[in-house]
Amino acid sequence: MELFYSQDIQNDIVVFSAEESKHMIKVLRHNIHDNINVVDGRGSLFHCSIIDANPHSVRAQINSSQPNWNKRSYNLTMAVAPTKNNDRFENFVEKACEIGVDTIVPVISQHSQRRVYKRERAEKIALSAMKQSLKASLPVVTDAVDFNDFISKYKDTSAIKLIAHCMDSDKHSIVELLRDNKQDSYIILIGPEGDFNEKELNLALDAGFKPVHLGTSRLRTETAAILAVTSVYLANID
Amino acid sequence: MELFYSQDIQNDIVVFSAEESKHMIKVLRHNIHDNINVVDGRGSLFHCSIIDANPHSVRAQINSSQPNWNKRSYNLTMAVAPTKNNDRFENFVEKACEIGVDTIVPVISQHSQRRVYKRERAEKIALSAMKQSLKASLPVVTDAVDFNDFISKYKDTSAIKLIAHCMDSDKHSIVELLRDNKQDSYIILIGPEGDFNEKELNLALDAGFKPVHLGTSRLRTETAAILAVTSVYLANID
Repeated sequence: MELFYSQDIQNDIVVFSAEESKHMIKVLRHNIHDNINVVDGRGSLFHCSIIDANPHSVRAQINSSQPNWNKRSYNLTMAVAPTKNNDRFENFVEKACEIGVDTIVPVISQHSQRRVYKRERAEKIALSAMKQSLKASLPVVTDAVDFNDFISKYKDTSAIKLIAHCMDSDKHSIVELLRDNKQDSYIILIGPEGDFNEKELNLALDAGFKPVHLGTSRLRTETAAILAVTSVYLANID
Repeated sequence: MELFYSQDIQNDIVVFSAEESKHMIKVLRHNIHDNINVVDGRGSLFHCSIIDANPHSVRAQINSSQPNWNKRSYNLTMAVAPTKNNDRFENFVEKACEIGVDTIVPVISQHSQRRVYKRERAEKIALSAMKQSLKASLPVVTDAVDFNDFISKYKDTSAIKLIAHCMDSDKHSIVELLRDNKQDSYIILIGPEGDFNEKELNLALDAGFKPVHLGTSRLRTETAAILAVTSVYLANID
């Protein structure tokens, strides 16, 4: 199964971007009257037929639609410190979007190795991973957010909030916490290589984040983040 | 904590390779009498002091040793079809070694996108990930193995054997199977993008492999393999 993407949908007609049109016509050799599957990044799948095979701006007619297509049973926000090596953060973005995530927030804390984050490339990776993994919802990658602002913003949410840190303290494993706290909404904070500082950790704990450990392996930031996404996915598998 | 690696250990003296010596002396600026931690890739950690800071061939004296250092409670063999894009397979190797794996076997099946596999680069990645994730055992990356030969070799093992495939059939989730089959040894087969063929699947089932699904997301080969490694890790977390 092959998915195309567009948010430009009016009166049962889908119009595709120049990039998507070129890929559809020039690379995949689609033509007028071909049936294609389209997702809008907002949860719906559309079965369409191409009515204009212009390689700069394909148009297709919607024949039928499926809202909430392949919808997950939970919502996951991952707040992760951008890694020094940007490829590693982007690797997390790809894997997280394939496995299942709704929002990715690059969080800047005191020990962050990267303080500026350009989200354009990550957004492209998210789009490609959405199509690859047959999902209809496009994960959001936000601009970089200061740690304190992030905590304030999510202070009053009812979601399960977890913070993975390396300081010595009383922590449960992420497996145990996810098993004992079934929820449909999760927020997970993953710190930079140098960990959160004590003030940041206390701020998160005060805001209701539960401290978790990810087992005994010392993991890179992006590996810890992929593991956290996988933990939520596996805890909700049928 | 920072780990160095050597298998050249005789009479309480560790000798380091030219590459490791250069890194230790020229990059990390270690000098004679410095205390360093060394792993042998066979499970032991050694606390040592540098007695010769020759940047081409450092020598260190072992002061104390810890066998079975950070030892996992299980043994995991991952048999994975090499991906067309080699970076993706190497990404799996890195993540698997960080999280926890003992043996990685590139398996060539009918639909494999890559039929030749050079293991040298993967071995370097495994070594680096072992040190990064504070382990003393070096995961083995084997040469590429034909699917039929792989199945024959592991026919009579007592390990839990799982095969993740995409064909319609009666399958349990990997979470359920790992929960119901506690074991200290696992072998997991992950197929190529085009999946195993029916003959291969039947051969594996006849040899005692249990079919599993990895949830509803359609995952790339290397993502499925990372997810399988993570599933075993999480099923054995304290």
